[in-house]
Amino acid sequence: MADFQEVAKQFTDFYYKQFDSERASLVALYRDHSMLTFENEAFQGTGAILGKLTGLPFAKVVHQIATLDAQPSSEAGGILVLVTGALLVDEEAKPMSYTQTFQLVPADGSYYVLNDIFRLVYAG
Amino acid sequence: MADFQEVAKQFTDFYYKQFDSERASLVALYRDHSMLTFENEAFQGTGAILGKLTGLPFAKVVHQIATLDAQPSSEAGGILVLVTGALLVDEEAKPMSYTQTFQLVPADGSYYVLNDIFRLVYAG
Repeated sequence: MADFQEVAKQFTDFYYKQFDSERASLVALYRDHSMLTFENEAFQGTGAILGKLTGLPFAKVVHQIATLDAQPSSEAGGILVLVTGALLVDEEAKPMSYTQTFQLVPADGSYYVLNDIFRLVYAG
Repeated sequence: MADFQEVAKQFTDFYYKQFDSERASLVALYRDHSMLTFENEAFQGTGAILGKLTGLPFAKVVHQIATLDAQPSSEAGGILVLVTGALLVDEEAKPMSYTQTFQLVPADGSYYVLNDIFRLVYAG
């Protein structure tokens, strides 16, 4: 079994690099039963998820990971990932805090994203 | 199949009510293969998880949920939950932001916590 911490790190590094440079390519990480909850909206399937990700209303975005945690999530080799970090958008100088959780599922020698939930975090 | 959103809401309401009033009772929600990652520490099994939760160095704690999202996480009826919220500890006037993700797994007509990852979120 792959080291789940290492898989989680490689996945998130790749995910945010692609997100920040070539968002449409992220669609390859999802399948037709994959789910994305982004703030108050829920999407299922590669088409709907791609539409949401590419339709986000900012041109430039940079994710900075602050924490990354992972746990095995199923006997089949799934991995649960929790990220917290900061998001810099367009010309905004002030970063926003966010959290995102993924469940990665092994298939064909790699992993796809079954679950993806994203939330901005506002100071209490 | 139970409504995963409703299960997630009932679970989190119960979880934080018990956490804030009678922390040791939370052990009933975990099993021997359950995992807890709390900040930088990882625990597995009811004994280790109970030890961590009851050993947290505060007497009074209040969780306030800001957002709650859920998705089905397995064909077996698992539910992935992502919470963001604020935490008030002891006499501190200033709340801390936190995020927590759970995977709930159905068993014996109810659900137990297979995965639990908790992180404080600091402003960017």
